[in-house]
Amino acid sequence: MDIQPSTHKQPTKQTRSKLGEKLEKGQEGNDSLSRRKGKTRGVRRGTRADYLHNGSFHESVGPVLVIAQWFGLMPVRGILAVNAKSLKFSWVSFRTCYSVVYVILTSIDTGLTMNMVFRGAMEVKNISPLVFHVNALLVAICFLRLAVKWPQLMLKWQRVERQLPPHQMWRDREALALRVHKVTFVLITLALTEHLLSVVSGIHFAIHCSPNSDPIKSFFIAVSPHTFLIFNYSTWLAWCGKLLNVLNTFGWSYMDVFLMIIGLGLSSLFGQVQNSLNRVKGKTMPEAYWTRTRLQYRLICDLIEQVDGVVSGMIMLSFANNLFFVCIQLLKSINKMPSISHFVYFYASLSFLLGRTLAVSLYLSEVNDRSREPLLVIKHVPREGYCAEIERFGHEVAVDKVALTGMQFFNITRGLVLAVAGTIVTYELVLIQFHEEENLWACN
Amino acid sequence: MDIQPSTHKQPTKQTRSKLGEKLEKGQEGNDSLSRRKGKTRGVRRGTRADYLHNGSFHESVGPVLVIAQWFGLMPVRGILAVNAKSLKFSWVSFRTCYSVVYVILTSIDTGLTMNMVFRGAMEVKNISPLVFHVNALLVAICFLRLAVKWPQLMLKWQRVERQLPPHQMWRDREALALRVHKVTFVLITLALTEHLLSVVSGIHFAIHCSPNSDPIKSFFIAVSPHTFLIFNYSTWLAWCGKLLNVLNTFGWSYMDVFLMIIGLGLSSLFGQVQNSLNRVKGKTMPEAYWTRTRLQYRLICDLIEQVDGVVSGMIMLSFANNLFFVCIQLLKSINKMPSISHFVYFYASLSFLLGRTLAVSLYLSEVNDRSREPLLVIKHVPREGYCAEIERFGHEVAVDKVALTGMQFFNITRGLVLAVAGTIVTYELVLIQFHEEENLWACN
Amino acid sequence: MDIQPSTHKQPTKQTRSKLGEKLEKGQEGNDSLSRRKGKTRGVRRGTRADYLHNGSFHESVGPVLVIAQWFGLMPVRGILAVNAKSLKFSWVSFRTCYSVVYVILTSIDTGLTMNMVFRGAMEVKNISPLVFHVNALLVAICFLRLAVKWPQLMLKWQRVERQLPPHQMWRDREALALRVHKVTFVLITLALTEHLLSVVSGIHFAIHCSPNSDPIKSFFIAVSPHTFLIFNYSTWLAWCGKLLNVLNTFGWSYMDVFLMIIGLGLSSLFGQVQNSLNRVKGKTMPEAYWTRTRLQYRLICDLIEQVDGVVSGMIMLSFANNLFFVCIQLLKSINKMPSISHFVYFYASLSFLLGRTLAVSLYLSEVNDRSREPLLVIKHVPREGYCAEIERFGHEVAVDKVALTGMQFFNITRGLVLAVAGTIVTYELVLIQFHEEENLWACN
Amino acid sequence: MDIQPSTHKQPTKQTRSKLGEKLEKGQEGNDSLSRRKGKTRGVRRGTRADYLHNGSFHESVGPVLVIAQWFGLMPVRGILAVNAKSLKFSWVSFRTCYSVVYVILTSIDTGLTMNMVFRGAMEVKNISPLVFHVNALLVAICFLRLAVKWPQLMLKWQRVERQLPPHQMWRDREALALRVHKVTFVLITLALTEHLLSVVSGIHFAIHCSPNSDPIKSFFIAVSPHTFLIFNYSTWLAWCGKLLNVLNTFGWSYMDVFLMIIGLGLSSLFGQVQNSLNRVKGKTMPEAYWTRTRLQYRLICDLIEQVDGVVSGMIMLSFANNLFFVCIQLLKSINKMPSISHFVYFYASLSFLLGRTLAVSLYLSEVNDRSREPLLVIKHVPREGYCAEIERFGHEVAVDKVALTGMQFFNITRGLVLAVAGTIVTYELVLIQFHEEENLWACN
Repeated sequence: MDIQPSTHKQPTKQTRSKLGEKLEKGQEGNDSLSRRKGKTRGVRRGTRADYLHNGSFHESVGPVLVIAQWFGLMPVRGILAVNAKSLKFSWVSFRTCYSVVYVILTSIDTGLTMNMVFRGAMEVKNISPLVFHVNALLVAICFLRLAVKWPQLMLKWQRVERQLPPHQMWRDREALALRVHKVTFVLITLALTEHLLSVVSGIHFAIHCSPNSDPIKSFFIAVSPHTFLIFNYSTWLAWCGKLLNVLNTFGWSYMDVFLMIIGLGLSSLFGQVQNSLNRVKGKTMPEAYWTRTRLQYRLICDLIEQVDGVVSGMIMLSFANNLFFVCIQLLKSINKMPSISHFVYFYASLSFLLGRTLAVSLYLSEVNDRSREPLLVIKHVPREGYCAEIERFGHEVAVDKVALTGMQFFNITRGLVLAVAGTIVTYELVLIQFHEEENLWACN
Repeated sequence: MDIQPSTHKQPTKQTRSKLGEKLEKGQEGNDSLSRRKGKTRGVRRGTRADYLHNGSFHESVGPVLVIAQWFGLMPVRGILAVNAKSLKFSWVSFRTCYSVVYVILTSIDTGLTMNMVFRGAMEVKNISPLVFHVNALLVAICFLRLAVKWPQLMLKWQRVERQLPPHQMWRDREALALRVHKVTFVLITLALTEHLLSVVSGIHFAIHCSPNSDPIKSFFIAVSPHTFLIFNYSTWLAWCGKLLNVLNTFGWSYMDVFLMIIGLGLSSLFGQVQNSLNRVKGKTMPEAYWTRTRLQYRLICDLIEQVDGVVSGMIMLSFANNLFFVCIQLLKSINKMPSISHFVYFYASLSFLLGRTLAVSLYLSEVNDRSREPLLVIKHVPREGYCAEIERFGHEVAVDKVALTGMQFFNITRGLVLAVAGTIVTYELVLIQFHEEENLWACN
Repeated sequence: MDIQPSTHKQPTKQTRSKLGEKLEKGQEGNDSLSRRKGKTRGVRRGTRADYLHNGSFHESVGPVLVIAQWFGLMPVRGILAVNAKSLKFSWVSFRTCYSVVYVILTSIDTGLTMNMVFRGAMEVKNISPLVFHVNALLVAICFLRLAVKWPQLMLKWQRVERQLPPHQMWRDREALALRVHKVTFVLITLALTEHLLSVVSGIHFAIHCSPNSDPIKSFFIAVSPHTFLIFNYSTWLAWCGKLLNVLNTFGWSYMDVFLMIIGLGLSSLFGQVQNSLNRVKGKTMPEAYWTRTRLQYRLICDLIEQVDGVVSGMIMLSFANNLFFVCIQLLKSINKMPSISHFVYFYASLSFLLGRTLAVSLYLSEVNDRSREPLLVIKHVPREGYCAEIERFGHEVAVDKVALTGMQFFNITRGLVLAVAGTIVTYELVLIQFHEEENLWACN
Repeated sequence: MDIQPSTHKQPTKQTRSKLGEKLEKGQEGNDSLSRRKGKTRGVRRGTRADYLHNGSFHESVGPVLVIAQWFGLMPVRGILAVNAKSLKFSWVSFRTCYSVVYVILTSIDTGLTMNMVFRGAMEVKNISPLVFHVNALLVAICFLRLAVKWPQLMLKWQRVERQLPPHQMWRDREALALRVHKVTFVLITLALTEHLLSVVSGIHFAIHCSPNSDPIKSFFIAVSPHTFLIFNYSTWLAWCGKLLNVLNTFGWSYMDVFLMIIGLGLSSLFGQVQNSLNRVKGKTMPEAYWTRTRLQYRLICDLIEQVDGVVSGMIMLSFANNLFFVCIQLLKSINKMPSISHFVYFYASLSFLLGRTLAVSLYLSEVNDRSREPLLVIKHVPREGYCAEIERFGHEVAVDKVALTGMQFFNITRGLVLAVAGTIVTYELVLIQFHEEENLWACN
């Protein structure tokens, strides 16, 4: 293996002039370098896999962002382009307009809900729709702000990727995209199913509650009670309300999916470095190898910090919102269900919510887990190969807390997951105990 | 940039003799040195900004302390002088007398409240005015004790400032003063608004409760019930009571403002060092540069420890008091409000209290955040420039826990903020759940 | 003492050829090496103790696994063989079939319980048998999965043992086996006693509740209510249900015993290294000694990680289950007991449960405790003998968190034990306080 | 380096032979050395203070142990001797017999209480006397076990003291004894006052509850209800019961005093080292100085570990017991008091309990605080004087967690104090909120 830092291997002048436009300040990693060299010189034929996946995060996340754009989020252009340089954000474009309109409509909706809540009593039953709408509005705004920063962020990400040790096989290049698409597909499907169940359950409830009136109308009124508190009922307004409700619900689910994918992407970067490290486990390597690896590790940490600056607001929002609704649902869970359809929908919905919350936490905490993996290799460096650079690297890995955060208030680690789970269980136990103390010893 | 430790550049004898009186043991930083040099030699004309802001904390905090003195706190002289050496505390001065009289009056007030509380039942409703008065008394005593130590502390602070890397531009020198004044203005304005609202709400409540009697009299009695339990009602006693109430309320708010400003001042010191470090990020610097930086960092840490010794009691008091009243307000929040004016005042007051508590925590925790920033530069030191001094510096930064504390029982960090917020939310959830479990599934 | 790494002392060719078959890649430690040398050359007579205990974990745990196999767990062959190489797992064997049948029956039982629970109200009284059955099913599956990986794991374990410093005396070799057998004996005996008490208490309760009907039949119905909800009562079905109930109960207790033994085994490895270290406390040793010790320590850490990968699911299961039943029992504890036999059984059962939970935690946390012991010796290394290897070793021990985990969500340390105990006590206090606030001051 | 104590100044052969008997392995520090030299040669006149205090912990703690022996605790001989070598424990001595009789009587008392508790309902009101008696029994047993180990422990402690840097002035030598006696006097006095108040309050309560019967008899019955449940009332039995009650109550208070004194003694050892360090702050010292200081620090850490092994059970007992009674008292605090004498006694007793608990925590946590102080000096070592030994010392101080523990489950630090206080406050808030939610907005 070539252990010289990639930075020392300068492309020849000829290549340089051709690549110049693409490289800018960042330096290409060996893999893309050799591949592109091949392409420009025509020496090596590109295989199918070569063109399908270059293993970059930008490429993997493209189709996922397309879905977001259908629902009015992330109005950025060039998300399906091969190179992150094609990404552009402009305030004057159809996508951006769509997003802005969506934000405005959601704001109006939130205003109407606020009006409804303050007219009623200050109770949890009333607060929960307000939280839902405020959350939807914040999600839309977050994605709009993210879209502005996305092109710069992806360029930086691409530059980091190119300086990491190259993938050894095309399978490795494919792996990230596969995982990202799998996660997206599973979660979006579940979210849609859950929403369909909610519609069915809602209509059923409408029939159950007011058996004489039109169930569809009752259902629509139940979906947008804040609208029909002010306006008279009209079918098109009802459909608009429902459509907005769908978009809002999707935005909430999508944010969780998006965060998981960010987690996946960042931990795959550590994976690339780790693969290179694992190949030299227990071997004596020159100091230059360790300097290079340390710099690569540092690059990833810097990227994580930058990404965290952009998404940590979303993380906070996602955690706060998910935990709020978990608590609300648990509070409901100890009440008697009015019908079997409610029972089924309720537990399906609660399971989905819990599972999604857990999944977001675990995917995000993987970044922290993987950031500590180099220690495993460092500890096995033989005495002869142990040098000052390794000590510095080992010290930095051991002392640093590399993790995504919730607005820098908490680090997302596996320990946090337990703490949150413990809190929820305690809460549920306290709830149960105030309903269950009697009759435990009675004969059946 | 001149990377020699400022300590090696001795002023010439001439300058020295002129500066001698001012310098004492401490050594001037480059900026003030050159500025003063300029002044003495007349080579360089002073601009307006030059004279307006020397960037010292003493100068920035001056106007804020003037406000405090209007309300009987911080009776120290020379707060508006250019040099911290002019600060003096004397027991025999008008300001000190004013403060002492205020302390005595507050003590009497507290005694009367205690009498009232012990006559009634031991309930939260009764305890809360006692906590308010005891707090006001402790605030007054804290500021009196602080005034005694303030001149020494500011001298030390000024000496530290002069050994730090000089500000590069006059804008940097202005920045601290601007932030301090902005924070003070916003918070004092909000506090006054909140107090006005409380008066309006109080009068409204007086009318609501006893529609037949004189609302002004009812209001004054409600403000000082402990006084009129013993003395007969008289207008001048009522006005005295209200005046003392205003001073007490202001003292509470002011303490929070003061703590924020301390936090701002200390983190700006780290900022000065960090600015110098950022300029050499990724460059190879001689070992002497790192020694100097480490010593500057150490100076700041020592100053923080000294400041903490003086203000950690106030921090404890502020946190305990704010949290107590947050809990009391949340407890009230689940009760039915008697009128709309109460509703508005109540939520405005609660929001202000929560916001202020959060702001104090965040400004104080910034000290801890900024103390860790040098690590970002140290990690990017290239291999060639990595020396023993950097390792020592990096180790000290990584291991040390530099933070303001609440009487050394807890460190003020961002993590603490989350812990406190989490506790409050849990408390609120428990409160709500015991009021809201029924009827969640009922038809509307 | 011979401080050369055992790896440098190569067996002679002759011995090697004879040992070749046994050694494979791993290298034998001095003890087994010399013992075997003795055996092959016939120079030294083996004493009784020599053959009884070679001090390996595989040997110590053998009889304990035999008990597991009686109850359908851990279907692996060769558990009583001298060498771990004899261990084999095969899907086609009587033991495996027995286990699989047990899993299937438990699944059916769990299904029936689920049916019963969902028919009734969602209350703790109903959920608790479901948790019991799901737990029993998961235990059976865990042990089945463990059996598949056991042979490989024990081989690795044996290889590690042979590279550690040899035991000095036959007593040391015996110690592990003695502790393992003692723990097993005590806990299995207590579990059987507790189960007998539960049967007596159950029959007593059956008589108490329905004095007219057949108490035995009532008891059997109370044991398997989920079965007789669907099937008609028949004596053989009742006995089957009871038998399965015994197996399930045993599986739960056995898992705890098994985890304790794993903890014992792993901490005894650290003990072996520590014994060697204690002999050189305060002495100056060559760097090679420290390299060897560090590598031995590393070997143990790697083994712990591997073992943790296999048993951390069980640890999670055991903790979750024990805590759930502790909470349920405490909930019951504040109710009035219907009879004295219930009182006795209830507190015996609760004490056993609490004691067992505590014992599991303590034995598992011992691994973490012992992993930090080398620091005690390192701190006493004199200045002359302090070398780079010691620094590296000390740093690794100080920074590393070596501990068994609950699915990597929490580390099992003594601190965790306190946290768990604190939570339980708080829970109990909250329970009590809502029953006890009145009448505390009344005259007797 | 010469790791011989500070000393370097070896006693001449003559002196040595005279001191030989006393010195054994341990080496005397300069102070005692020079003092004794003075005495033997008659060159220097001993002042009064010189003979009064040699500054050893053994000497300081002597009078405190005398008090313990009056109440049947710590039956060890030679506690007032100058040298710790005179300490002896023997099972056949009057003190030991007294202690054993006390243990036996307390056991019987505990048995009677247990009988009473199990006859009544399982309520907090009933459990609390049982906890009191079990605690008293455990305290007596702890001190008996401690007495056995005390002579060895004090010898070790004396040996450590003699290797530390000598006190500079006779005031320093006096300081420890003064603090120890002050703490003891204040706490014992308060405990006696509190007990007298309890007697007065008890008699008052007896009159209040049964105005017709003999108040003294009622009081005695209330003191020992468990005794008179079985035996008929007789005056001498009543007095015995009361006497035992006094001894039990004293034992509980005394354990807290004893723990504080242990904390004082251990932190004064760190203080001795720190005094020496402070004198060289900012100076360049030879490496040998740092080696010596590190070894002295190590000696203290080893001593703390040994002391912790002996007293950590007591610490656990003290914390558990104090917290239990704090919770019980808080539970009572929200009930209406039957009379004013109860009100006064109740809050005096609660304040004393809270203050004592806080004092124990703070004195014990001082050990941890002071163990970190050397870092302050190490950070100010100039670059020229920074050597490998300092790095090692600094690293050990930074990484080590030197603290007394509660059976190694928790470290006693200032952070713990806050955690405990926070828990108590939360508990009280929860208690209050379930009594106070109504009527907060009502007109007066």
